[in-house]
Amino acid sequence: MQAKGRLYGIGVGPGDPELLTLKALRLLQAAPVVAYHSAVDKESIARAIASPYLTGNQIEVVFHLPRALEPETANLIYDKEVAPIAEHLAAGRDVVVLCEGDPFFYGSFMYVFTRLSPHYQTEVVPGISSLMACPVALGVPFTYYNDIMTVLPAPMPAEELITHLLATDAAAIMKLGRHFAKVRDVLHQLGLASRALYIERATMTQQRIVPLDEVDPNQVPYFSMIIIPTKNRL
Amino acid sequence: MQAKGRLYGIGVGPGDPELLTLKALRLLQAAPVVAYHSAVDKESIARAIASPYLTGNQIEVVFHLPRALEPETANLIYDKEVAPIAEHLAAGRDVVVLCEGDPFFYGSFMYVFTRLSPHYQTEVVPGISSLMACPVALGVPFTYYNDIMTVLPAPMPAEELITHLLATDAAAIMKLGRHFAKVRDVLHQLGLASRALYIERATMTQQRIVPLDEVDPNQVPYFSMIIIPTKNRL
Repeated sequence: MQAKGRLYGIGVGPGDPELLTLKALRLLQAAPVVAYHSAVDKESIARAIASPYLTGNQIEVVFHLPRALEPETANLIYDKEVAPIAEHLAAGRDVVVLCEGDPFFYGSFMYVFTRLSPHYQTEVVPGISSLMACPVALGVPFTYYNDIMTVLPAPMPAEELITHLLATDAAAIMKLGRHFAKVRDVLHQLGLASRALYIERATMTQQRIVPLDEVDPNQVPYFSMIIIPTKNRL
Repeated sequence: MQAKGRLYGIGVGPGDPELLTLKALRLLQAAPVVAYHSAVDKESIARAIASPYLTGNQIEVVFHLPRALEPETANLIYDKEVAPIAEHLAAGRDVVVLCEGDPFFYGSFMYVFTRLSPHYQTEVVPGISSLMACPVALGVPFTYYNDIMTVLPAPMPAEELITHLLATDAAAIMKLGRHFAKVRDVLHQLGLASRALYIERATMTQQRIVPLDEVDPNQVPYFSMIIIPTKNRL
């Protein structure tokens, strides 16, 4: 009987291809099949990050899905989209799934993992998350010593955001998009606006750092973050 | 006039040398001077992680300091310990400072950064944090979609720990050491003990995963973490 292929979920980091780990590179180049997701009609960001290292002899599997999907919709789409990956695995071919950032930290790999890891030998390789890449790109130490650090998704109501920001030493606010104006108002209200730093597409060639009050709330991309570094400085 | 050397703060990741990034490897191997901290009379963990990649022709600078230091004491010690690094930089030699995990995320590099970055050109390279490495080593997706995630240092009072745990979807509790028993009691009290996962020395050769209730509270090392993955599963 033919051995099944192995599934690898590989974090490719935030954007700069040099932020892949040595382990990610080794597994990526050894795999006959490379899979990644892509917004419809757009280049896959995960593939773009890994592209310098693709061997040219690999089968590529793309799964299309809109970004910032509701979980229910994502689940329906993934049920269908993992089928080609499963076929390669069943045929004995190892498959590397490329994931922006880290696979288990707000990573889309979870949808693949929950479906396929019960059936196929699976290994996950951590990646540099934007949570670490953004403070480094901004040049500001983020947390230290006994700080509490909280990751907050911007879609939550302003009152909840306020409660959480008051309870933490350092914070990262993500998924800003159309919620940016609300978040900025909250930061001003709490006196945190002067400490908050805004960055788009950290470590990508299009990286952009903009003072908080100069950000156009109608032009905030998916890959953006507000970092509030600890005030407990040395 | 001689050009000053450049200072690099490089995250070497959680323990597995293969979790260095390609950028960290390149800068590490190009630098004439490599610096790292070490507990007195112990091997430096950061150096051990990077050791497969040292060229053998590099000057090594060790700064000795106890772990889990109070910031005030750390500041006094660092004032003295950064001096040899500054001398190399002033003499025109680039210096790579190795940092376990990520330099700006609870990293000891902050003490070096605050002292030397005003005077020398400085570049920081993010590293894989144990925050990402632990869930991957445990094989459990950590956060997804619109989760709130909180990093909590174990030394805080039990009542504060309870407040923060009730307010978050996912949590990482670090700096357990002698606070482990208190943390475990809190997790039982909140009904979180069955979801909480304990791990020591993630990705190191001595990695150990122990069921929460089987951990000996008197034998909890510095490199240990409790991960509470989101219950908002797919």
